Amino acid sequence: MALVERSLLGPGPSNTYPEATAGLAAPLLGHLDPDFLAMLDETGNRLRAVWGTENLRTLPLSGTGSIGMEAAFVNFVRPGDVVVVAVNGLFGERMCDVADRYGAEVVRVDHPWGQPVDVQRVLDAHPSPALVAAVHAETSTGARSDLKHLGTALRERDERTLLLADCVTSIGGEEIALDDWGVDIAYAGTQKCLGVAPGLAPFTVSERAWQRRVERPTTWYLDLGLIGNYVTGGSSGGRAYHHTAPTAMVASLHAGLGRILDEGMPAVAARHREAGAALQDGLREMGLELFASEGHRLSQLTSVVVPEGVNSGDVRKRLLTDYDIEIGGGAGQYANSVWRIGLMGHNARLDRVEMLLGALKRVLGR
Amino acid sequence: MALVERSLLGPGPSNTYPEATAGLAAPLLGHLDPDFLAMLDETGNRLRAVWGTENLRTLPLSGTGSIGMEAAFVNFVRPGDVVVVAVNGLFGERMCDVADRYGAEVVRVDHPWGQPVDVQRVLDAHPSPALVAAVHAETSTGARSDLKHLGTALRERDERTLLLADCVTSIGGEEIALDDWGVDIAYAGTQKCLGVAPGLAPFTVSERAWQRRVERPTTWYLDLGLIGNYVTGGSSGGRAYHHTAPTAMVASLHAGLGRILDEGMPAVAARHREAGAALQDGLREMGLELFASEGHRLSQLTSVVVPEGVNSGDVRKRLLTDYDIEIGGGAGQYANSVWRIGLMGHNARLDRVEMLLGALKRVLGR
Repeated sequence: MALVERSLLGPGPSNTYPEATAGLAAPLLGHLDPDFLAMLDETGNRLRAVWGTENLRTLPLSGTGSIGMEAAFVNFVRPGDVVVVAVNGLFGERMCDVADRYGAEVVRVDHPWGQPVDVQRVLDAHPSPALVAAVHAETSTGARSDLKHLGTALRERDERTLLLADCVTSIGGEEIALDDWGVDIAYAGTQKCLGVAPGLAPFTVSERAWQRRVERPTTWYLDLGLIGNYVTGGSSGGRAYHHTAPTAMVASLHAGLGRILDEGMPAVAARHREAGAALQDGLREMGLELFASEGHRLSQLTSVVVPEGVNSGDVRKRLLTDYDIEIGGGAGQYANSVWRIGLMGHNARLDRVEMLLGALKRVLGR
Repeated sequence: MALVERSLLGPGPSNTYPEATAGLAAPLLGHLDPDFLAMLDETGNRLRAVWGTENLRTLPLSGTGSIGMEAAFVNFVRPGDVVVVAVNGLFGERMCDVADRYGAEVVRVDHPWGQPVDVQRVLDAHPSPALVAAVHAETSTGARSDLKHLGTALRERDERTLLLADCVTSIGGEEIALDDWGVDIAYAGTQKCLGVAPGLAPFTVSERAWQRRVERPTTWYLDLGLIGNYVTGGSSGGRAYHHTAPTAMVASLHAGLGRILDEGMPAVAARHREAGAALQDGLREMGLELFASEGHRLSQLTSVVVPEGVNSGDVRKRLLTDYDIEIGGGAGQYANSVWRIGLMGHNARLDRVEMLLGALKRVLGR
């Protein structure tokens, strides 16, 4: 049967960097092979570079992006802990669900979707929460929040509160400085701006957060103490087997990150900005309205209001069947009234912009 | 830098079927693409075929094999439930740890490592447990247990007790008939006899177990109710997005399973038996002693006693550096006194047997 080749211009996964594809198909290594362990160490170094952190505990978890969210709450929240969650889209909503399952006293700070997080409202929500959680780049709406502002304000107020950030859609697409911003715990996914297939969740923890982790969390698979003994070595210095690491995916992530760092993170970020601006200009020229709040729009993921009288699903279906182009519908209540168009990683290119604009113009008859 | 190519003849991962490698590197599909969803459905069908089950809920979970164990306990055990665990190796041990984290009252039935599970002792351990858990093929020791005997005996005694089976090292390497045997919940891994890279945990649940699942488990990522709405469709019939499925890994599993079913599961099982017998004969001819109890030895994974005076790690290191062959050390207290040699999936071949026997002979000077 013929293989289908799509242009993945939705909210992720996106088409992978050629280096990442080659990494996936390279001869498989065992999870205890010294060559694999060296590659895993280097993957940690590369993640530190794109994330702007010196955190020793920086590693890819063996699951898709959402497993990073789960790992954060199960390892750092105890029943009864006050957790303030800034909710400005689907992934903030999900954080509330996950935190609640682990017994947190969740304080929601709701925002209209498409808006960035209001730092002052988050601060005002509780005087001394154990944890504040926010999404850097909301995949569901295409809005960016100012983590630097939030982190700085939290550190100034209180040395106790930890800051947790969802970086699923920001990592590898824009410059991030977790340490400067005061982020303690962050997770991400591989399938968006890192240009790697879905299947790993990059994760990082600061030393001060590490000291406050739950000693024996309910989860075995995501027990960071056990995983840490494999990834960074145990107290005796040796590496203890935990679970079989997804070695092909790690090799692919290693290669994708290598490609990004060869190009240089500032150049990669500029490429995303340029592609995003060209797309957003083109959409406006077609008379379409952008959904996320101006001044807070992501370059890597653009949300567009579906014009009145247009059936969202029909357009997406025609793009897929006639042009092999995938774009996303909206999330939650915006499922049929918003489209999401991603230009992430390898797709942050002007050729993709023209392809998409041309196809969309034909389909909409504009 | 030159790529390293190893013969992965340890306890997994093993070298992948060429079809599985091609599946990994094929153009990536989105997790909501109709072509991907059709492939996911077919992957479920193929898993049913190799597992011998009609279970509707048969799917690959987004993590490595161990996540299957975690999903089983978090979704089917409530605090205070009596769980009888047959422990005859590392993975039985781990089940006790995981079950305990979720509040089960764990009744351990310990066996000497290398022995199969003693069905009568398991039955005698508790008159009516909520769940009995056992490992089909213990990766840590190379011993097979008789799940058919265990399942039949449990069903005859009590309609209430669920049977959970770890099939990580058996799936794709021998014939399995979960439904006939009375297994309610089973999980596996992709990186052993399925001949696919590590990264997915095939999982299956019977209807009677499904009716007794935990409605809102502590985990969000592994909440089978939510995942089921994506994989098999929700009550309304539609598929609801849960998390981004690892689409490249699913494509690879789909292809690996296709290869197995093309060859035919009986022929694949015979190939594993033939290769395993040739290896075990060759090892005995070299004067080596097999570790697992006779009559219960796996074909796909052979455990060997390290001869007195031989340094286990030195031998493994020479095999790796001089021959690019990986074999495994032992597990737990047998770390340095047992080797584990896998002939799984694509490696269940006579050429691999000769290569390994020849290299080992040279290294041991026999």
